Amino acid sequence: MSHTYEYARPALTVDIVVFALDDEDLKVMLIQRDLPPFEGGWALPGGFVRVDETLEEAARRELAEETGLTDIFVEQLYTFGNLGRDPRERVVTVAYYALVNLEGHNVHAATDARNAAWFAANDLPELAFDHNEILEAAHARLRGKVQYQPIGFELLPEKFTLRQLQHVYEVILDRELDKRNFRKKVLSMEIVKETNEIEKDVAHRAARLYRFDKRKYDRLIKGGFNFEI
Amino acid sequence: MSHTYEYARPALTVDIVVFALDDEDLKVMLIQRDLPPFEGGWALPGGFVRVDETLEEAARRELAEETGLTDIFVEQLYTFGNLGRDPRERVVTVAYYALVNLEGHNVHAATDARNAAWFAANDLPELAFDHNEILEAAHARLRGKVQYQPIGFELLPEKFTLRQLQHVYEVILDRELDKRNFRKKVLSMEIVKETNEIEKDVAHRAARLYRFDKRKYDRLIKGGFNFEI
Repeated sequence: MSHTYEYARPALTVDIVVFALDDEDLKVMLIQRDLPPFEGGWALPGGFVRVDETLEEAARRELAEETGLTDIFVEQLYTFGNLGRDPRERVVTVAYYALVNLEGHNVHAATDARNAAWFAANDLPELAFDHNEILEAAHARLRGKVQYQPIGFELLPEKFTLRQLQHVYEVILDRELDKRNFRKKVLSMEIVKETNEIEKDVAHRAARLYRFDKRKYDRLIKGGFNFEI
Repeated sequence: MSHTYEYARPALTVDIVVFALDDEDLKVMLIQRDLPPFEGGWALPGGFVRVDETLEEAARRELAEETGLTDIFVEQLYTFGNLGRDPRERVVTVAYYALVNLEGHNVHAATDARNAAWFAANDLPELAFDHNEILEAAHARLRGKVQYQPIGFELLPEKFTLRQLQHVYEVILDRELDKRNFRKKVLSMEIVKETNEIEKDVAHRAARLYRFDKRKYDRLIKGGFNFEI
């Protein structure tokens, strides 16, 4: 069945920048394309928006189909519509970014006839389309946003050490932070709560585990806050 | 000439929230619709994206056609794609917001067969489609953004008094600011420069005129800054 319109319409897609954190650095999930254009090249997960789904539904559906990721933090980033960004025809894409806690989610390393893999955000291959530009915009948003919203928590397991939390900020901001100042700042904001537990199975001295205070977090999000470090 | 595609495509539009400031409050430009749906109702200026123009070009073209405004600050806001937001068919709209200095631009009060008018941002009529929601998102963005980017300057003439600058912030943030603290903060950031001129034709004692320091401004924008007041 084909669809006919009086005026030409751009095709509409969604693309998703999925960030995750491991012990070393900030990771981004990429998909290897199995069709032209850019056959064999790496690209962001994404696809066409159906007329009966919202933009966020399209983003979540594509994520689930191409990476197996469900129930994760997803937020709209920016809409990219430059001419010629797709060699086939005019395509406008609504970009999203997603944050994943690697411990809590089962990521498929591959889907139907494609590879999916994590890449270090600061060591990426040349991507298909304008996806390098989209990724850079997502990274910039993340850097900006951690300074006034505690979204870094989305990248951590439910219980975490302050060292892990500091690592989130260091990796996203791409600079080392002073341990004492960082702890003082975090504890003074009262967005994390001590638990009775300590780390398990670690070679170093086991550290206290914290979890974040959902009520405080929501109140801070609402009122806006400043987490400059 | 009609256009046929293998899969159904959402229609793609742009809508623009144009903010301006007068002596009293923050104003928004609205257009009265002359066609169904919402015939006679007020709506944001906007229209369909052509396949041979970028999204920002579409926004600027629609602005020029419907309001006569050209060469103004325009920035992408968010893309709205809920099902049913247009009763006719699936329409996804890329929303922009624009800032206008009323002294520097000639705004047409009407265009072909439509009215265009300024409304107070805090006293708006019921708008067509989901335009109230778009407007609220634009206002929230503006409130957030003045705290870390000096975009308020786009709403002022080239030379302005500190009283006028304070008015910009008071109107956008919708609260009164302490005059002494405000001036201290602004002058300490060194983003404004004193000129040799004073206000003309005012009933009260003429105040010093300032202009903003473009070099400092650009450097601050790049590095990010905090203008919490």
